[in-house]
Amino acid sequence: MELGLLYSAGKDSTLAALLLEEFYDVTLVTATFEITDDWEHAEQTADALEFPFEQLELDSDVAHEAVARIREDGFPRNGVQHVHEHALEQLAASGFDAIADGTRRDDRVPTVSRAQAQSLEDRHGIDYISPLSGFGRGAVDRLVDAQLEVTVGPSEEINRADYEGELRAIIAAEDGHEAIRDYFPDHEQTYVTDVQ
Amino acid sequence: MELGLLYSAGKDSTLAALLLEEFYDVTLVTATFEITDDWEHAEQTADALEFPFEQLELDSDVAHEAVARIREDGFPRNGVQHVHEHALEQLAASGFDAIADGTRRDDRVPTVSRAQAQSLEDRHGIDYISPLSGFGRGAVDRLVDAQLEVTVGPSEEINRADYEGELRAIIAAEDGHEAIRDYFPDHEQTYVTDVQ
Repeated sequence: MELGLLYSAGKDSTLAALLLEEFYDVTLVTATFEITDDWEHAEQTADALEFPFEQLELDSDVAHEAVARIREDGFPRNGVQHVHEHALEQLAASGFDAIADGTRRDDRVPTVSRAQAQSLEDRHGIDYISPLSGFGRGAVDRLVDAQLEVTVGPSEEINRADYEGELRAIIAAEDGHEAIRDYFPDHEQTYVTDVQ
Repeated sequence: MELGLLYSAGKDSTLAALLLEEFYDVTLVTATFEITDDWEHAEQTADALEFPFEQLELDSDVAHEAVARIREDGFPRNGVQHVHEHALEQLAASGFDAIADGTRRDDRVPTVSRAQAQSLEDRHGIDYISPLSGFGRGAVDRLVDAQLEVTVGPSEEINRADYEGELRAIIAAEDGHEAIRDYFPDHEQTYVTDVQ
């Protein structure tokens, strides 16, 4: 079965790939608005991990809707969720038998409810799988330590390919670089360079 | 890391074992009140799958509490949930670094909430993992078809080693065999004999 996994080169989506590869023909798929070329980092990691890689084009209207929401809220959660739901819809329509993401049990965003999962599956005739949703933060961290080579640093300095990076780029371009700190709290991000 | 997986020889817990075996030293653990010797079927399947096997002794008071609840409710759900929570507590206290079960996304019983999972982890210093909780029924069925050799039949005729079998045995002994049909709706069960 052909499975497309939404891939950011972060530790969660990389671990999800390792969990699924025994059971599916996994393609790592990085969704991008093509606002930045950060998706190329994900392609490099996919090459290092020896997974097939695809780019998934997102609708730039959705990026601007998400940014408007982040400005209104003063925090990124709902805007990022909006983009994730759009990315899953695009991925579900792109020809795979199954789609997946790296959502963890303890994630606050993005989240995919049981009802949303069922709706995706029914409308598109695919399976939606979130292989890490039964793993807590501690379990994920221990598996990552055992399995992956990672780089850790502040969100802005790490070469990942997630939606937040592109949304931050829009905000920096339109509102100035300082505006990013108003909306995105500092937090550490990780970027996977290879398996151990 | 040593992981103990609650194991019934059903398709869900067997698939959970295959998902985890790349990442953990998995022992299949069958919880039993020792009311029946159905746990021996699980040991046979564990041997066929070449996993280490352990028996986990449950408190017979819990079986009688569960049966009382099933009689009161007229359906098995809350009684089975009570036993599952007890089994997870016993397993968490039995020396593994991590514990797991075969709970699926679409299961109505047993269920383990995020708060229950976190509480188990914090109180016992272990990771609790439900590797199938990100998989829906369709995805599980397709993986089982691809990976496992299974036997399917009515609950009463299948050689599994789940709590329901032992609770049914208590009800049959105390209330007569016909009483089982009052409380347990007919449904198909599966029993795994080997991997493909």
